[in-house]
Order: sequence, then structure tokens, then C-alpha cells
Amino acid sequence: MNQEIKRLLQNPASFLVPGTGDGIAISSRIRLSRNLSCLPYPIAAGKESAARVIREAEEGCSRSKTMGRRKGLFLKMDDLDELEKLLLLERRLASNELLKSPVPSALAVSSDEKVSVMINEEDHLRLQVLTPGFELATCWKKVNTLDNELGSVMEFAWNDELGYLTECPTNVGTGMRASVMLHLPGLVMSGQIDPTIHGIRKLGLAVRGICGEGSKNTGNLYQVSNQITLGESEENIIEQLSAVIRQLIEYERRARRALLDRDRFALLDHVGRAFGLLQNSYKLSADEAIEALSALRTGVDLGLFQHLSSATVNELFLELGAGHLQMRAGLALPDPEQEVLRAKLFRSKLRERS
Amino acid sequence: MNQEIKRLLQNPASFLVPGTGDGIAISSRIRLSRNLSCLPYPIAAGKESAARVIREAEEGCSRSKTMGRRKGLFLKMDDLDELEKLLLLERRLASNELLKSPVPSALAVSSDEKVSVMINEEDHLRLQVLTPGFELATCWKKVNTLDNELGSVMEFAWNDELGYLTECPTNVGTGMRASVMLHLPGLVMSGQIDPTIHGIRKLGLAVRGICGEGSKNTGNLYQVSNQITLGESEENIIEQLSAVIRQLIEYERRARRALLDRDRFALLDHVGRAFGLLQNSYKLSADEAIEALSALRTGVDLGLFQHLSSATVNELFLELGAGHLQMRAGLALPDPEQEVLRAKLFRSKLRERS
Repeated sequence: MNQEIKRLLQNPASFLVPGTGDGIAISSRIRLSRNLSCLPYPIAAGKESAARVIREAEEGCSRSKTMGRRKGLFLKMDDLDELEKLLLLERRLASNELLKSPVPSALAVSSDEKVSVMINEEDHLRLQVLTPGFELATCWKKVNTLDNELGSVMEFAWNDELGYLTECPTNVGTGMRASVMLHLPGLVMSGQIDPTIHGIRKLGLAVRGICGEGSKNTGNLYQVSNQITLGESEENIIEQLSAVIRQLIEYERRARRALLDRDRFALLDHVGRAFGLLQNSYKLSADEAIEALSALRTGVDLGLFQHLSSATVNELFLELGAGHLQMRAGLALPDPEQEVLRAKLFRSKLRERS
Repeated sequence: MNQEIKRLLQNPASFLVPGTGDGIAISSRIRLSRNLSCLPYPIAAGKESAARVIREAEEGCSRSKTMGRRKGLFLKMDDLDELEKLLLLERRLASNELLKSPVPSALAVSSDEKVSVMINEEDHLRLQVLTPGFELATCWKKVNTLDNELGSVMEFAWNDELGYLTECPTNVGTGMRASVMLHLPGLVMSGQIDPTIHGIRKLGLAVRGICGEGSKNTGNLYQVSNQITLGESEENIIEQLSAVIRQLIEYERRARRALLDRDRFALLDHVGRAFGLLQNSYKLSADEAIEALSALRTGVDLGLFQHLSSATVNELFLELGAGHLQMRAGLALPDPEQEVLRAKLFRSKLRERS
């Protein structure tokens, strides 16, 4: 196993350490797209040019205080096997695009795992800050500092009229995408999620389910982010997004209260069955586990468990992933054996705490 | 609450006290149809005639040693409310036909609940012995003694050529129906149950699911009984039935072993999930409970539980019934509240033992 990846595995993912708030906002993220001027975008780059971007980024990160200077990780994707890549994906440090980049790509990660830079993803650089809870202001402060640090040693592609230049026109301007991951079981169970999403989209924001494919969203997790990058300041964009997030959190709170008032036993049953499943199964698919963990999280938020913390829920949310499971086992395993292993993980974690 | 019914509620149902064997044969039953000569069958009887049957039966039972003489219960159906009747049905002491009899009907129950006589069901008398496990010989000995005791003080309708006369021609002769209730999850899970049932029927025996309506058989419980009552001695009929039951038990054993060998985790998962459901739900329908209890029973049979006995499984199997639930609560409750109560029962019983 790559020694740097091993370091990651020793810690809980930074974005899942419990944040402030009531558990509805799971995590916040801001990323900035940046490109080196005078070099072609990764999609059009040759090996030479891609390698130069990696060299400059590594040099920049090693000087950046925000990246922890030389204490941070610097991973070249070509050095990693499939499991190690999957692990980075599950920790939300790398994107699918980065892993499948047609040219050599790399990833810099700060020692506390909160800050990372994807190199030769869609753009030359994607600066990213990820925190638990609803902390867009913190994210912005940190990623802005990193931007200044890197910008002082690299020349970013910039146009006086448009702002930062990016490979995809939808990122031109600030190059910023800010998002919050929300856990919205109350809105889902009470049937309010579809009109709510519709309303958010009308405000010019994007909403997408986090887990699962297509319209099926496993685990009641939604990511809300800005669409606009041009013609508004970063602070304005973040403030508008934050106002909507605050509203959504309030809607979710109300929905949960209403569910408790209307049919307390139905909600207890939903949470109890999920706990029973996770504590007693011997074969567990990732989808089932995510779905049941959502109910467990709801139970923890509502104070239904004495000996179960959101830290455990977060830990399990990360560890249930095929990448984490197989990395811990130390080998690649077929699906059925992953299911046995996943069930074992949940049994041991939930039995020791009940 | 009827004081005699109250006595029943204080004890576990006799047929569910763990018997010998490995848990595959849950209980055995033999019933004899008998009628008083010179009186019309219940379907054609007037009130006067029905009342006379009840008087004679009460008198006969009070003299019978097998019925515990005056220590036994003697219940007139007209004195009971709907919940009390449901309770008798769930304890397998009364049949639906008895409860819906067009004329006054009654039920005598021995003090140990193993022996009962339904009066003015389809026939004037239905003598019944019910035991846990695979105990047809014991049942026969006991019901035969009761038959002799009652026959010495009453005159049973008899024809020298046919034997005992009964309302329905399918009972004429011995008037005997012997049956064993089997728990066959292994044959069900391995897809062998349909051909097996087909084979049993070809041998001239009857098979029916115990719980649930129509083709859906909840809880993997099957009752196998003789069809023939004419032209064979009781002992022969019982021996032929017993041979088939022994074979079935062996098939079920093999099916369970094969399941364990082929995919141990699938079986553990089946049992574990059922346990998790029953231990953690807050709303539980009777069907769901029966289905999950079947898995629990399998787990107990296979020695998967340290602190769970078949006595607990049996107790829950009885107590989950709508009649028992409501009688314990002391009032009639709508379905949703029964589900809440049922879930509470399982939570408390399974938590104290885990």
C-alpha cells in the first residue's frame, strides 16, 4: 500500500468529523478552478505540458502554509492502484475526472486533509476546502488564502473583463463552486423534497443527490451549490447560497418535528429497524447500508440513542465504502465478500456501542 | 374478563411448550368426531336439541378423568366476547366453525389445556388432544381414553359397517383426523417445498399452510394430516402418517444442512435480520412478526443464539396474536395500536434475553 495513502486511512475523513449544528448540514465545500496561463488545458495538453503543471503545483504546494508545506501529501495518480484511487474518491479528495484524466494527474492534500488541490483534472488546478457542518465562511477564508499563496508563485490565466479563465465556460469568472451537503430525511419522508428541490433550482442553485445513480437518491443526502460564477463577487454568491441553506435547514427541522408529532411510532420504527438491520445482518450492500445509516443519523439527531454518536455514524459512512473496506482488508474482494465484510464492520461497531 | 379464560392466559399454550426433537415438528394433534345418536347434527338442530348436547357433554366431561373432572374449564360460547373467542382460536382450542356455530356451542378444556372437547361444532363432539413435538402416539392414547370415558356415559352414533357416523361423509369411520405441524424453512428457502407438498398429497395426505390466506403461507408452517377415515384402523392411519412425517423431518434437516454448507452467511443473514427487526421495531404487523419468528426459530434450532430459547419463541408466537395482545392490554384496540403493542412486546422480550 502507498505509504501516503496509509496515512490517510489512519484518520477519519476531515469532512465527517462532527461539525456544529444539528446534523442536518453534513459538510461544506468550496473549490476554485485555476489554470496556468500560456499552457493548454488538460484535455488538449501533451505529456510534457501536463508534467510541467504537476511540477509547478508541487512546488507551489510545498511552499504553501495552508497546505502544511512539506507535511502535506503529494500523490501522482499513476503511482496508485484502483483501490487507492477509490479510497481518495470516497474521502472526497479526488473526483472521477481526476482519476480518469487523459494526461498524468496528481493530488496534493494538506496534512489535516481539509485542503486539497487536484492537478490536471478539468482545469490545471482545482483548489478545494472541505469542512464538516455548515461552514462556508471558513471554507472561503481558507481557500482564498490558498489561492493567494499559490497565485504568488504561479501565473493564473486571467482576463480583466471575465476574471479567471477556465476550461468550461460555466466556471469562468470566480471559478468558484460552493456547496453544502444536507441530510434531509424529514423532507423526503413527508413528501416535500421534490417541490423543495424545484424551488431551489428556480433560485438559480443546483441540487443533486449524493449517493446512487439517476433519480434514486440513497441516504437522503443532497448537495446544494451555486451555478453562477460570473458577474458576482465570491462573498455575494456565498451569502446568497447560505441564505437558502439556512432556510432549508429550517424546513427540515420543521418536517422532522411534524413527523414526530403526527406519528411518533412510525419515525421510531424507521430508526429502530435501521439499527436492527445494521446491528444484525451478515450480508450488507452499500446501498442498504447508506439507506439505514441515514435513518440512524436521524435517530442520533433526535437524541434517540444513548450510546451512539454522530462520530460513529460518520465513521461508518466512510468505512462502508468499497474502497475503504478493501483497503482495510488489504486485498481486492468480489462484491459478495465485500457484503459479508461490510456487515461484520457494522455488527462490531454497533454492538460495542449498544 | 371471563374468569376461566383468565386461567388460560396465565399459562403458555400446551401445544407450544417445547417438545422433544429438533424443533422441526412443532406440535401434534388428533381429533375424533363423535355424535350422539338420535339427535340431529348441529347444522339441523333446534335450540332444545343443541342445549341437550351441551348438557350431556358437560356431564360427561365432569366425570372424565382425562378432562380433569371438575378442575377442567367448561365455556359456553354465548358467554364470551369477541376477544375471548379470538384467544381460544389462537390457543388452537376452538375452531372458527365452533365460534360461528348457528346453535349454542361450548368448549370443555382439561386443566392442563392438552385435551379439549368442542361441542356443537360441525359434529356434536370433537374430542381433541394437542401436544408439543412429534407425539402422535401420546395423542392417540389420550384421545382414545377420553373417547372411552365419554362413550361409557353417552351413546355415540355408530354403524356396524361404517363405524362412527359424522355430519360430513369425509369423517365417517374412525372420525379421526391426526395432524402434525411442521416448521419447514429449509425446504421453503431451497425451493423444494412445492414438489414436496405435491409428493405428500400423492400419498393421500393433506397439507396446508398454517398462517396466512391462500397460497401465501407466512412463517413456513405446514400441517400434514390424514385424509382417510374409512376402512383402516386408527393405529394404521397414524403409522402411515408418522412414516411420512419422519421422512419430511429428515428432508428438512438435509435442506438446512445444505443451506449452511452452500451459503452460511445467507442463512446467518436471514436469521440475524429477523432478530434485528423484532428487537428494534416500533410497529409490527402479525404477518411480519410470524415471518421473522420463523427465522428466529430456525436460528434457535441451529444453535445460533446463546440467550434465546425455543420457549421464548413459542411464547412470542402465541402472544403476538391479536387476541392475546388485546386480552393482555385489557381492551379492544384498532390495528395500528396493536402493531405498536406487538412491537413493544418483542422489544422487551428480546432485549431482556440478548
